[in-house]
Amino acid sequence: ISGKIKIQFRLAVVQLQVTRVKADNLSRARRLVKEAADEGSKVVLLPECFNSPYGTSFFPTYAERIPGESTQMLSEAAKESGVYLVGGSIPEEDGGKLYNSCVVFGPDGGMILKHRKIHLFDINIPGKICFQESETLSPGNSLSMFDTPYCKVGVGICYDMRFAELAQLYSRSGCQLLVYPGAFNMTTGPAHWELLQRARALDNQVFVATASPARDETASYVAWGHSTVVNPWGEVISKAGAEETIIYANIDLQHLADVRQQIPITSQRRSDLYSVASVQAGSG
Amino acid sequence: ISGKIKIQFRLAVVQLQVTRVKADNLSRARRLVKEAADEGSKVVLLPECFNSPYGTSFFPTYAERIPGESTQMLSEAAKESGVYLVGGSIPEEDGGKLYNSCVVFGPDGGMILKHRKIHLFDINIPGKICFQESETLSPGNSLSMFDTPYCKVGVGICYDMRFAELAQLYSRSGCQLLVYPGAFNMTTGPAHWELLQRARALDNQVFVATASPARDETASYVAWGHSTVVNPWGEVISKAGAEETIIYANIDLQHLADVRQQIPITSQRRSDLYSVASVQAGSG
Repeated sequence: ISGKIKIQFRLAVVQLQVTRVKADNLSRARRLVKEAADEGSKVVLLPECFNSPYGTSFFPTYAERIPGESTQMLSEAAKESGVYLVGGSIPEEDGGKLYNSCVVFGPDGGMILKHRKIHLFDINIPGKICFQESETLSPGNSLSMFDTPYCKVGVGICYDMRFAELAQLYSRSGCQLLVYPGAFNMTTGPAHWELLQRARALDNQVFVATASPARDETASYVAWGHSTVVNPWGEVISKAGAEETIIYANIDLQHLADVRQQIPITSQRRSDLYSVASVQAGSG
Repeated sequence: ISGKIKIQFRLAVVQLQVTRVKADNLSRARRLVKEAADEGSKVVLLPECFNSPYGTSFFPTYAERIPGESTQMLSEAAKESGVYLVGGSIPEEDGGKLYNSCVVFGPDGGMILKHRKIHLFDINIPGKICFQESETLSPGNSLSMFDTPYCKVGVGICYDMRFAELAQLYSRSGCQLLVYPGAFNMTTGPAHWELLQRARALDNQVFVATASPARDETASYVAWGHSTVVNPWGEVISKAGAEETIIYANIDLQHLADVRQQIPITSQRRSDLYSVASVQAGSG
């Protein structure tokens, strides 16, 4: 009678400690997904590159075809736990090329989508961090959204988050939750990780969740950690530290509806003056 | 020989205490513009609604035609101080309609552009703040950019800042500085004022400056204050408190060029997948 949306659900973000031993990464991820589901989570998010250390030298060694060992585990984990599982990302091999790919599975264990990182992480901050994903990886060429019984979800990987257009297109297409497995570093992490998430959330009035690997000070690439969930008001509602952990957030779609009614930018946009548009999406 | 851009300049933001006495507002604004210029500023920014209290009941009373008393003062102030003067905004009357308009003058006292607020401030947060600019104001229908010897500048007014597309179009058109005279309130100010500025700055790798009126606890609409300047790395480089003051910032275009080289999102955008486009701009 009130017309209010009642739907809310529990989201879990697994901030996995990723090691060089793939089998350990897979088994620990599976155990933590189960733990998250036992705590009532309906959607579980794993970090970028959860089965492999992050680094261009590791990608060829750890890369798999899809389906393969890691995605088989993800499928089984989703099914045994009855959750939507956003499988972070893994280095994918296909046709002689490598991709940074996120695979999503439904509660029946079926694969829902595969998102290949669209924007490769090529940056060079002298004396701080230089990384060129494009040395070994190829970019994806498609946007990736999926439906759940709760809301529609848009998927990006790490550096994809810097490009506001992706989040704009996802939210204009009805996504109310954006998920970004990501591994920012000790330079860009403190500077931009939380700011980017809060910006995406506030500008589009959506929930945003990020999943980072836990920090490993001995790794060649040291992840910032701090997996985070932000609400449509732009507030951080859940945040990890640097260590391996699971964080939880209540994704309250009534809150989202309230924010959009209070500050109705969604209907106030001047489509007579500007537009954000999807251009012909290719395969990949 | 280095190919490095050498240009930098001093920007001043005048956080004016706005009262009900228009003549006082004008004379104080003029004095503070002069003070800012004496301190070496080349571009000076005044707050939204600097000649009138902010409120729909005040707009009809304080509205002027352009040119008029307030813009005459701005022209003279710009010329006597030899600065680019972004004249905050004033309620403008034209053809029986009212607008929230920002007028920019050059160092020769000539009017460079007039920006009419595109997005009217109509929000309703129960128990906190309800405001409907559209009760009395009409919206503008054009984007507004101007050139200076230092860089190109994009202009928005307050609520315009919530719409990322405007900033995206300005920066894609070559603006390196975005200015937003604005008057956020005691609810949206602490929640969103700084976040929006940092988001616009980081996402577009530009400088962003905002100018608020000083806070007047006795006013019907209490402004948040906290005029701010943010650099292209997303860092706040200058920020006022709540009281009347002038803040200064060094707009270092070499810093901007460095950031764009280090994290080259400008060239990494996937124009084959998405675009932000200007739609036919009308008059107004």
